[in-house]
Amino acid sequence: QLSTMDSKKKGILERLNAGEVVVGDGGYVLQLERRGYVKAGHWTPEAAVEHPEAVLQLHREFLRAGADVMQTFTFYSSEDKLKISGNVTTITGSQINEAACDLARQVANEGGALVAGGVSQTPSYRNDNNESEIKAIFKKQMDDFLKKDIDFFIVEFFEHVEEAVWAVEVLKTSGKPVGATLCISPEGDKHRVPPGECAVRLVKAGADIVGVNCHLDPLTDIRTVKLMKEGLERAGLKAHLMVQPLGFHTPECNHSGYINLPEFPFALETRAMTRWDMHKYAREAYKAGIRYIGGCCGFEPYHIRAISEELSAERGFLPPASEKHGPWGAALEMHTKPWVRARARREYWENLLPASGRPTCPSMATPDADLTPWTISLEKKKKKKENARSVHREMSAY
Amino acid sequence: QLSTMDSKKKGILERLNAGEVVVGDGGYVLQLERRGYVKAGHWTPEAAVEHPEAVLQLHREFLRAGADVMQTFTFYSSEDKLKISGNVTTITGSQINEAACDLARQVANEGGALVAGGVSQTPSYRNDNNESEIKAIFKKQMDDFLKKDIDFFIVEFFEHVEEAVWAVEVLKTSGKPVGATLCISPEGDKHRVPPGECAVRLVKAGADIVGVNCHLDPLTDIRTVKLMKEGLERAGLKAHLMVQPLGFHTPECNHSGYINLPEFPFALETRAMTRWDMHKYAREAYKAGIRYIGGCCGFEPYHIRAISEELSAERGFLPPASEKHGPWGAALEMHTKPWVRARARREYWENLLPASGRPTCPSMATPDADLTPWTISLEKKKKKKENARSVHREMSAY
Amino acid sequence: QLSTMDSKKKGILERLNAGEVVVGDGGYVLQLERRGYVKAGHWTPEAAVEHPEAVLQLHREFLRAGADVMQTFTFYSSEDKLKISGNVTTITGSQINEAACDLARQVANEGGALVAGGVSQTPSYRNDNNESEIKAIFKKQMDDFLKKDIDFFIVEFFEHVEEAVWAVEVLKTSGKPVGATLCISPEGDKHRVPPGECAVRLVKAGADIVGVNCHLDPLTDIRTVKLMKEGLERAGLKAHLMVQPLGFHTPECNHSGYINLPEFPFALETRAMTRWDMHKYAREAYKAGIRYIGGCCGFEPYHIRAISEELSAERGFLPPASEKHGPWGAALEMHTKPWVRARARREYWENLLPASGRPTCPSMATPDADLTPWTISLEKKKKKKENARSVHREMSAY
Amino acid sequence: QLSTMDSKKKGILERLNAGEVVVGDGGYVLQLERRGYVKAGHWTPEAAVEHPEAVLQLHREFLRAGADVMQTFTFYSSEDKLKISGNVTTITGSQINEAACDLARQVANEGGALVAGGVSQTPSYRNDNNESEIKAIFKKQMDDFLKKDIDFFIVEFFEHVEEAVWAVEVLKTSGKPVGATLCISPEGDKHRVPPGECAVRLVKAGADIVGVNCHLDPLTDIRTVKLMKEGLERAGLKAHLMVQPLGFHTPECNHSGYINLPEFPFALETRAMTRWDMHKYAREAYKAGIRYIGGCCGFEPYHIRAISEELSAERGFLPPASEKHGPWGAALEMHTKPWVRARARREYWENLLPASGRPTCPSMATPDADLTPWTISLEKKKKKKENARSVHREMSAY
Repeated sequence: QLSTMDSKKKGILERLNAGEVVVGDGGYVLQLERRGYVKAGHWTPEAAVEHPEAVLQLHREFLRAGADVMQTFTFYSSEDKLKISGNVTTITGSQINEAACDLARQVANEGGALVAGGVSQTPSYRNDNNESEIKAIFKKQMDDFLKKDIDFFIVEFFEHVEEAVWAVEVLKTSGKPVGATLCISPEGDKHRVPPGECAVRLVKAGADIVGVNCHLDPLTDIRTVKLMKEGLERAGLKAHLMVQPLGFHTPECNHSGYINLPEFPFALETRAMTRWDMHKYAREAYKAGIRYIGGCCGFEPYHIRAISEELSAERGFLPPASEKHGPWGAALEMHTKPWVRARARREYWENLLPASGRPTCPSMATPDADLTPWTISLEKKKKKKENARSVHREMSAY
Repeated sequence: QLSTMDSKKKGILERLNAGEVVVGDGGYVLQLERRGYVKAGHWTPEAAVEHPEAVLQLHREFLRAGADVMQTFTFYSSEDKLKISGNVTTITGSQINEAACDLARQVANEGGALVAGGVSQTPSYRNDNNESEIKAIFKKQMDDFLKKDIDFFIVEFFEHVEEAVWAVEVLKTSGKPVGATLCISPEGDKHRVPPGECAVRLVKAGADIVGVNCHLDPLTDIRTVKLMKEGLERAGLKAHLMVQPLGFHTPECNHSGYINLPEFPFALETRAMTRWDMHKYAREAYKAGIRYIGGCCGFEPYHIRAISEELSAERGFLPPASEKHGPWGAALEMHTKPWVRARARREYWENLLPASGRPTCPSMATPDADLTPWTISLEKKKKKKENARSVHREMSAY
Repeated sequence: QLSTMDSKKKGILERLNAGEVVVGDGGYVLQLERRGYVKAGHWTPEAAVEHPEAVLQLHREFLRAGADVMQTFTFYSSEDKLKISGNVTTITGSQINEAACDLARQVANEGGALVAGGVSQTPSYRNDNNESEIKAIFKKQMDDFLKKDIDFFIVEFFEHVEEAVWAVEVLKTSGKPVGATLCISPEGDKHRVPPGECAVRLVKAGADIVGVNCHLDPLTDIRTVKLMKEGLERAGLKAHLMVQPLGFHTPECNHSGYINLPEFPFALETRAMTRWDMHKYAREAYKAGIRYIGGCCGFEPYHIRAISEELSAERGFLPPASEKHGPWGAALEMHTKPWVRARARREYWENLLPASGRPTCPSMATPDADLTPWTISLEKKKKKKENARSVHREMSAY
Repeated sequence: QLSTMDSKKKGILERLNAGEVVVGDGGYVLQLERRGYVKAGHWTPEAAVEHPEAVLQLHREFLRAGADVMQTFTFYSSEDKLKISGNVTTITGSQINEAACDLARQVANEGGALVAGGVSQTPSYRNDNNESEIKAIFKKQMDDFLKKDIDFFIVEFFEHVEEAVWAVEVLKTSGKPVGATLCISPEGDKHRVPPGECAVRLVKAGADIVGVNCHLDPLTDIRTVKLMKEGLERAGLKAHLMVQPLGFHTPECNHSGYINLPEFPFALETRAMTRWDMHKYAREAYKAGIRYIGGCCGFEPYHIRAISEELSAERGFLPPASEKHGPWGAALEMHTKPWVRARARREYWENLLPASGRPTCPSMATPDADLTPWTISLEKKKKKKENARSVHREMSAY
């Protein structure tokens, strides 16, 4: 196993410019929900203050799995969102942001990892779309991060490119690199701005890295990033590409998010991807020219390790956690039962079609509202009226 | 939320004798494999020495989820097993056992929990069946535990009641209470000793609590425990009952273990139970008269929390982690989308049949060898010859 | 292709005594329902009078498929049943019985086939269990048949062995051979008389051939017939064995009938067996020592042809309809598309796991009442009260 | 039940011009394969000569089910196709065509039905694309039909609009109305001519009715017809619309035909649609403005009856076979078992998700080659070379 020390001091852009593969970390929110530290429905990151040991440990697991970046656990930590969620009354957004930076930094320093300050969409955008007000929210978060030692920013989980552009514009004033990922489908953002155009707008706003995160399964997110790439090429623009998809199979909702699936958020187990699915994902992402490859909701440490293992030749090393993992199931090879020994090989796991053990369950669900471009525009009209009164509720769930 | 302090000082038998529900913890081995600290195929617990922070954290999550017992992370930590696995050369079984006791105790003291020293089956049993030699192995482990502060013993994951009886006989010499769980099916142990008779032998050997752990899904394990209970009643014996099943759906292998499933051990995701499955499990276990209710492989902290929530009326309190959980999805009730709000209720989650998102996968697998009582006896004959040379391989996998 | 002429004049017992395989015909009721001549819910055979051309044609298709027996289309044609069904007012049971005999005979004479007069259970049995009254019903049907030219009798679709015994006793007075098949599971008849004992009672009553028809899938019905065979052997009795199972997959209801499946009777399509399933069935039946091998509901002509093809070596000839069938898909071998050519072989079809094309449907249903031996006895008690008023309704559906 | 006599003498265009719903018949080829009269792989209609009774009977069943048109059983009966199939040596295309006309006419006259002469694509088209040669083939078939009493022509199962246009041009010289259905997807024909343009070309060639048949499931075929309709509207053209889709669920191959499914042609059972699926289909077709609504492969008589029942209010009568069918399962209402009685209603069957009874089978298959527009063009290049030698093989299978 080679050392990761060589790239220790290099920044995110130096790494990407040098053609290195950067492995991202996985999903904090859903995993910490299962560990007992995040409340589903609120999804706010107060655990950074309340239970730092739990956040630290998950950071460490991602680091061991080969992640090159520790993303601060600051999802939905804008003051407007915290206020709406009503869940946290005594802890401020600044407290969370600062604590989260310290935790990410502590673990990053245990390996050669970088710290990325994460900024996500705000409820205020949907409420009244006031650019200066929303930019002020981002500015406040940025100031929290800048009090601490972070390496770059990630703008993530934005459904509307317009709001993401505002975030990028604010964060670029810091002088630090900015990556920007939307949670959109191949059909575009919620206003049907196509992925190619989204990418162009983000790069023109100053994003150094663009891509997609969350909402859909890996191969669909890769398709969207490819469309972004083509848009940039047509516009004669350049940027690094990143992807941090769901760790769930979502074939039914290729054009809407997994939130519409009946299983969201408390019965997604059966959709969880295996480590072998992640090998395919990592390879496809690499082939698509994406060099920042991580995960979002549903990515556990062993999923990130699978990315690191798939790309170990390209990166030149295996992650620490591979000490506890035989490649492609190799450690089963000394089992007595011949049929279990037969599983100690790549072909077996690559071709296995895992059964659900749930014969009375279907294999595909009917999403609660499968939004096509046509229904969307209708829905938007209906929603406008509804919005004035409902925005507060909207943001308190994913 | 009520306090757990009342039962803080009470031992396991005092609690059970008083009719209290004791919630067990979940599975360490598979979960720590996913977190990057256990090697599948070896499944040995050297992380207790190598990465105490990871073991501590998982203990804490189970404690927060409502577990009344911290089981020492000592699965497969007998010297003979460690030697065979070949994985750990510089760490002794005693080091692991002692470190694991300290970790369990540290977290147990953070709540009102007890510490149980865990002892599992040995490769030597299959090798030559030498009673005194195997008892010596158990004695050595017991001595490690007795150097530390443990409250009682759990004999678990025994496929043959004969070996479990030997373990009970040794551990009873400590004067501490002993619980004993076999990993058997309603058809009995590997020698087809029926569950009722297994229970009788264990109780006669001194076990205070008997039951089943691992290998099969919760409702099947409960069926087996019921058969144990009936056996005890017929024999005029009394013991407390416990169950710590798999957290996976295993309808295909009701009479063999999940190891025979093609998905074992690296593609079990899709079989994982939801928290709502656990509500049903906890209720059924309670109705069956079982009062020590926990989990084994596949039980994550939120599964244990679901047990605690289902039985919160019986126990009189909710666990700490329920601060981060709306009962039956209640925290979704303020979502804007009406179809997501519709999920904020018990009927929704109780009746949901989750889709796998894998339409090219089957819902049931063909176990690699579905061992019926008849094929077993044939297989045993074949195996006798094979055994001399293969036992070393056998125990290096589950 | 060899001729079937050799066995043309031989009776059913001569054939079976000589060790010949006798291929039965398939299901008339469900198939004629789909063709538009039978009313589901009533299931009565008035089409024998109303639409003889439709009945003739289906007989012919079974004959072409290799059936050695034309069973008269007289299911549920006892006067008591016809009266209850209310559907047929101007046609008497005798008219149906006589017409059905003529149709079966006409087609039988086109090949070397025999005619079997079919007698099924009566609603009167459930109503008051009056032996002499019920025997009078069977006597009347027998007299209808004896006016015509039939070769032997088949007593079929009896849920209670007691009533079947009465039918056998009556029909034996004709001096003709009698076959008797119950629609029971490996657990026994509706009063839980085990299959072995059922067989003994039937043979003692005079049945020359015993077995099982309808209600469950082929492999389950074969299991039941094996239990009958064992019962006869234990009792030192001898009889020929026959089986005419469902042509549907019914894994959920191995101990109850397919009537309890939610799909019965109008959505069973997806459970229909392929011709390749029938090869397996025919081989298993043959291996079990069964020599009268046919089908019941769900068996279409091509299913019967598959039995004939599987057992063509044993019988020494292929059926006429095999002129229109390449064995194991052979006729696909000249297709241009290489992937379709690849289907022109036995391994392909034997190993294919056909997809349902219904990803939002489950693969197993929850039967409306899964009757175990224990619930049965409870249910029977409840039913006794209910029965007085409901028997009329009961028999108007399957 | 009302009489169909009013429309007895009206031609197809008079009926459609008057706004009547015309119900087509179902699929002959697959159904007669199952009945033992058609050889899969060859799919030729020699049964019209060899076994007229079987063809007559199927015609009659469709008539009883409410079909207004008896299509001649002349699929693949062009001389070039019969020669290639090699199966039929002593029967000429003319013999088949003439016999098939007589059979269709005989049954049509038993009700108020029309006779449509069916003409399908030729192997010669793929071979050398020679317009005059191929038109001569169609001319010969037309002459056969004109010797008999037919009411109009149906051009069907054409994968290339160019060849269909040639057929229409020839048949229009007869002076009789012509309907033309392609077996294409929403993506267009095999040369990627979009559905809208296909429709325009067919209408310009003289087709009075245009639409789609076979290859894909009903709702997909309706989508394609809608695109045809839009194309005609854009071009300012008018024509009646017709659809005769597959009776199978084919979600995997929306852009290729069901021939690519691994289950084709001998394991399609599990994909078969229920009668309730057909209610939805008929309603959707009607809503889309289609007034000639029938079926192709997989449509059995009871499926056609379901169309007739769904549209009975629009048509003003129920078909004869509805005498043997309670609407929406009504005839189950007097069953004793309460759970079966509960099935005697529309909501039950409309919402039922039927289980396959095949838990080790997937719900979706991977088509052997999923041809997208991009792979098609590649494949065509490869095929050109291959074609010279393979065309003979191609047409001997579907």
